[in-house]
Amino acid sequence: METANVTFLPHNRTISVGKGERLIRAALQAGVHINASCGGGGVCGKCRIKVEKGSVGEGISERLSEEDVAKGYRLACLATVQGDITVRVPVESAIDAAVLNQPMTPRRTAKIKTFDFNSLKEKGLFIAPVEKIYLELAPPDAANNMPDVSRLLIALRQHNDLHKLELTLPMIRRLPAELRRENFRVTVTVIKPVRDDGKNVIANIQAGDHSGESYALAVDIGTTTVYVQLIDLNTGEIKGERGDFNGQISYGEDVISRIIYAEKAGGLETLQSVITATINRLIGQILKASGIDRQDIASITIAANTTMTQLLLAIDPSYLRRAPYVPAATLYPLVPAVAIGLDLAEHTNALVYPQISSYVGGDIVSGIMGTGMYRDEELTLFLDIGTNAEIVVGNKDWLACAACSAGPAFEGGGIEFGMRATKGAIEDFSLDPVTFEPMLVTVGGAKPRGICGSGLLTMVALMFEMGVIDNTGKFHRSLLSKRIREGQPGIWEYVLVWRDETDIDRDITLSELDIENLIRAKGAIYSGCMTLLTEVGLGMEQIERIILAGGFGSYIDLEKAMTLGLLPEIDPERVVFIGNGSLLGARMCSLTNKIRKDVVEVTRKTTNFELSETPSYMTNYVAAMFIPHTEIEKFPRLRKRLEERKKLMMGNQM
Amino acid sequence: METANVTFLPHNRTISVGKGERLIRAALQAGVHINASCGGGGVCGKCRIKVEKGSVGEGISERLSEEDVAKGYRLACLATVQGDITVRVPVESAIDAAVLNQPMTPRRTAKIKTFDFNSLKEKGLFIAPVEKIYLELAPPDAANNMPDVSRLLIALRQHNDLHKLELTLPMIRRLPAELRRENFRVTVTVIKPVRDDGKNVIANIQAGDHSGESYALAVDIGTTTVYVQLIDLNTGEIKGERGDFNGQISYGEDVISRIIYAEKAGGLETLQSVITATINRLIGQILKASGIDRQDIASITIAANTTMTQLLLAIDPSYLRRAPYVPAATLYPLVPAVAIGLDLAEHTNALVYPQISSYVGGDIVSGIMGTGMYRDEELTLFLDIGTNAEIVVGNKDWLACAACSAGPAFEGGGIEFGMRATKGAIEDFSLDPVTFEPMLVTVGGAKPRGICGSGLLTMVALMFEMGVIDNTGKFHRSLLSKRIREGQPGIWEYVLVWRDETDIDRDITLSELDIENLIRAKGAIYSGCMTLLTEVGLGMEQIERIILAGGFGSYIDLEKAMTLGLLPEIDPERVVFIGNGSLLGARMCSLTNKIRKDVVEVTRKTTNFELSETPSYMTNYVAAMFIPHTEIEKFPRLRKRLEERKKLMMGNQM
Repeated sequence: METANVTFLPHNRTISVGKGERLIRAALQAGVHINASCGGGGVCGKCRIKVEKGSVGEGISERLSEEDVAKGYRLACLATVQGDITVRVPVESAIDAAVLNQPMTPRRTAKIKTFDFNSLKEKGLFIAPVEKIYLELAPPDAANNMPDVSRLLIALRQHNDLHKLELTLPMIRRLPAELRRENFRVTVTVIKPVRDDGKNVIANIQAGDHSGESYALAVDIGTTTVYVQLIDLNTGEIKGERGDFNGQISYGEDVISRIIYAEKAGGLETLQSVITATINRLIGQILKASGIDRQDIASITIAANTTMTQLLLAIDPSYLRRAPYVPAATLYPLVPAVAIGLDLAEHTNALVYPQISSYVGGDIVSGIMGTGMYRDEELTLFLDIGTNAEIVVGNKDWLACAACSAGPAFEGGGIEFGMRATKGAIEDFSLDPVTFEPMLVTVGGAKPRGICGSGLLTMVALMFEMGVIDNTGKFHRSLLSKRIREGQPGIWEYVLVWRDETDIDRDITLSELDIENLIRAKGAIYSGCMTLLTEVGLGMEQIERIILAGGFGSYIDLEKAMTLGLLPEIDPERVVFIGNGSLLGARMCSLTNKIRKDVVEVTRKTTNFELSETPSYMTNYVAAMFIPHTEIEKFPRLRKRLEERKKLMMGNQM
Repeated sequence: METANVTFLPHNRTISVGKGERLIRAALQAGVHINASCGGGGVCGKCRIKVEKGSVGEGISERLSEEDVAKGYRLACLATVQGDITVRVPVESAIDAAVLNQPMTPRRTAKIKTFDFNSLKEKGLFIAPVEKIYLELAPPDAANNMPDVSRLLIALRQHNDLHKLELTLPMIRRLPAELRRENFRVTVTVIKPVRDDGKNVIANIQAGDHSGESYALAVDIGTTTVYVQLIDLNTGEIKGERGDFNGQISYGEDVISRIIYAEKAGGLETLQSVITATINRLIGQILKASGIDRQDIASITIAANTTMTQLLLAIDPSYLRRAPYVPAATLYPLVPAVAIGLDLAEHTNALVYPQISSYVGGDIVSGIMGTGMYRDEELTLFLDIGTNAEIVVGNKDWLACAACSAGPAFEGGGIEFGMRATKGAIEDFSLDPVTFEPMLVTVGGAKPRGICGSGLLTMVALMFEMGVIDNTGKFHRSLLSKRIREGQPGIWEYVLVWRDETDIDRDITLSELDIENLIRAKGAIYSGCMTLLTEVGLGMEQIERIILAGGFGSYIDLEKAMTLGLLPEIDPERVVFIGNGSLLGARMCSLTNKIRKDVVEVTRKTTNFELSETPSYMTNYVAAMFIPHTEIEKFPRLRKRLEERKKLMMGNQM
């Protein structure tokens, strides 16, 4: 991606962004506030800036007079960066100018960790799980009429040093015809054992040379979405990828309602067939698009939470939702993919990621494997945030995990104007420190419809840092702004967008109830982390690295998350985002037996804590019900910023 | 069985027989000839004997006058032994009396080797293949909510010292409900690994205590008949046994015609479903009769020839009948019984005996295992005689095998009046050395209908030894007997039964063509044995033990078989009959993992010889086309008898 430098005046702050980026987003990233209350569609006309050097694309609207345009004014929400530019943000008062000198923290998202097959090899983590071997066998004659299987196995033993070989009955059935189709020239697919003393299983036999065609599938089954990747086992490349909603959504939005459905007569069978139908459809699409033969897929690795796993395997999930929350199993045996209804070849094996407990499932184990945290020295905090947050802490010596119900606040649930991060969702936010006017950016630059998780997080953090709300999440009643008002009796709120600028014909507000819900959610997660650490005799300050997984983590503004007390304060450089950790781990497991081997040990050594059964959890939870926390000293950077801000404000008032 | 002594005069020969035995059979066993040409139904009235001491049951017929009866005359074919007796056989001439002094060889059948579970244990051959373990687990609570599988496995590890445990997916599916059915008291069926480093597979889980109920099935699939045994794994007992014709008979009598049928569209599937239907019917009958639960059957071991094995497993058998006669496999993996259509529990595994070649199959390997010859020092000859004869020679150090097409002579095929050993078949025979009048015994004492294999063997051996036929199987043209005549031009024959005493309204004869077919059959077998031994640098005289298997072997008169040159001369005490060796081996394999372990090694070390590809076979065959053989010195006992007989006859003529 080509980048360009954007310098904002009078802040004199420069940031590098991708060409084509909208100016308003560049400003947010640089920590530069520009009033913009309509979400970025050019409606309110407040985000005027003046281009002083270089030129921008677009940015012209009926809100600007011809004269303004001629002077270089543009709307920041419409203008796009095309090259190096300098723009000036109009400053309406001296107070504003002074505040601009405040060292604002620029927006920081986590580094994205990408996966690299070669580095896997370099680290000695690559142990081929599959070998496709082309053989030219001597056809039988009177002097050598050994059985077909023996002929094959002897060649593999002598020329390929493969021992403990086993053919399944379906393969034995196919062997005689397949051998004779191209005069005893065949390609065999050998599934290598995970344990050194295991068997080499011959999983496929194809007439002719197919040694270059070796693939696997990686699948993440989420409660809401399902993703499938097709992996080239020779190169590590992703040859195709598709995602879709989990077809089970029609039977319940969350795991509990799915379990309840599964308890009905025929319910388990229905849910099982619906999820396999979703996976089969995605596989079909990928294979069609890539032109790859179904026969050449050696394995399918599946990572899913415990409920999704038991539903996929048709195992009664009813004990998962009832105390004491007992899953059926930790490790599942390798099963033929066809045995669980997947539309793959008879020889394709399905590997299902192991579970740790009812609420820490294969998706999290897969994430742990994908991050490699179980191999590293650093004390790592792994967080997968959705309706449930799963937390893993530890390093190469030990691992502890827990799940907590964060509630749906991060996904827009329980928030009056909350919504998923779809078109019109306010996803980013800034606040004028003097006028308290907002700067809003919506998904797709559309008229605002509501607030998504990342927007919410940013708003609450900024409002706290700018003294709009206190550390319990309540608005300072004394603030002079028409945007801050008593909505319902006793419940104050901030008006993000006035009715006429929304797409929903209502004022979009953020209320104290919404903030309380967010504090509960972040408090649950933080205290989960605290509890895990406390149980092993460590403190939050000892965390050396944070790994974020899940859709939410990619948009999260790290400084804001730390301000809020969702994450402990740590150098943002030490925060890594891995995206869909479950899919990443499934992909790695497809690629190397090292992961398959290690996962058994990882699952065994990860201690699960049921937070409801851990007394310190409630104590930690209560302490975390503040912004950032009752103990502000745990957040020294924030404390320093708050003190500096206080001084600045005092200075202004003098 | 209670026995009694029967003394025959003037021979002064005493024999011990079971009470209730017919006197004519006792005479045959003692080597005493009594004219009896009607097969034993009291029709010809020739078999008059006089009871001199003790008394017999029955034996009275209209063929005897009241006066005769009063004097103690009875018909030997009807009279039964009830206690110790002395009977006198009427001697019609002085020549007869002299001949009686000839040391006739008494009829000798092979010792029957019976199977004993305790001796298996004493020999250290018992390694339990299955364990049923009753467990009382602690039910889960908040403090201990590990997965159900973990709870089970930990208990098995801690209390039963079982490691490398594995549950199949179907078992994991059943576990949660089964555990909770009787408050976490369950019985698990653990299938022990055959190899020391293998897995312990949990094959069944039953609520409550079922530890005493552990069974297995053993099956022999013959081309003609199928036998199933139900074995108690705790005691080794046979709890039920059934046999029936192989349902595939309607699709062809022999393996070749079955293979041809299997090559037709849908033919393989049909034959597969027909054989499983036969087995399923037998299993159903046994389970019903024994009242044993299908769920308590841990495994089914199946022994069958190569064609029957491939048909059972739905593997195209067409390469078995085409040069170079290549079977699909030697060893087959363990498969779920349901996967091959058997009506057993989902967890029941089917173990299929390995094959050595297209014509030495799992039935023979099973026989080798059943006899234990692969563990012994003695050089053993194992013979399974049917339409095909399979031969194994060797000992604990080496094994060689071959199959030869003996033709159906031993089963009555290719013999003008040949028939199976069913009602009316002449099954035993003796010949008056002077008058050449026959002594016939038929199956069931019925009017003669034909000749079965054992009868044929005895006839030809005796005729040779008494100088009726020469060593090429041709009648001495000079003999004066109306029974010996030229049937077709140039082809002489012996009339066994005159038309009016038969059940078929024709003279029943034995012709030179019949004898030639028998010589071909025995020649094929003997030269097979010779060839195997020659190939390994040994001679027939080094054979220390003979083991006979198959239905034919139980009736065979060993001395006659040696006279004929079917078997090498050996002390009859060293000949053992094991009956259905295939079923015996299957039963042993069900009972102990030692056999399952050893069979892999046995199969590997047994060298198969394709006789058609072994040059010495034809030479040996030509040499064996005489009675007993071109080299009479290989049969010293026979040579001595022939010499003594010659002297005696010369003496009589003087």
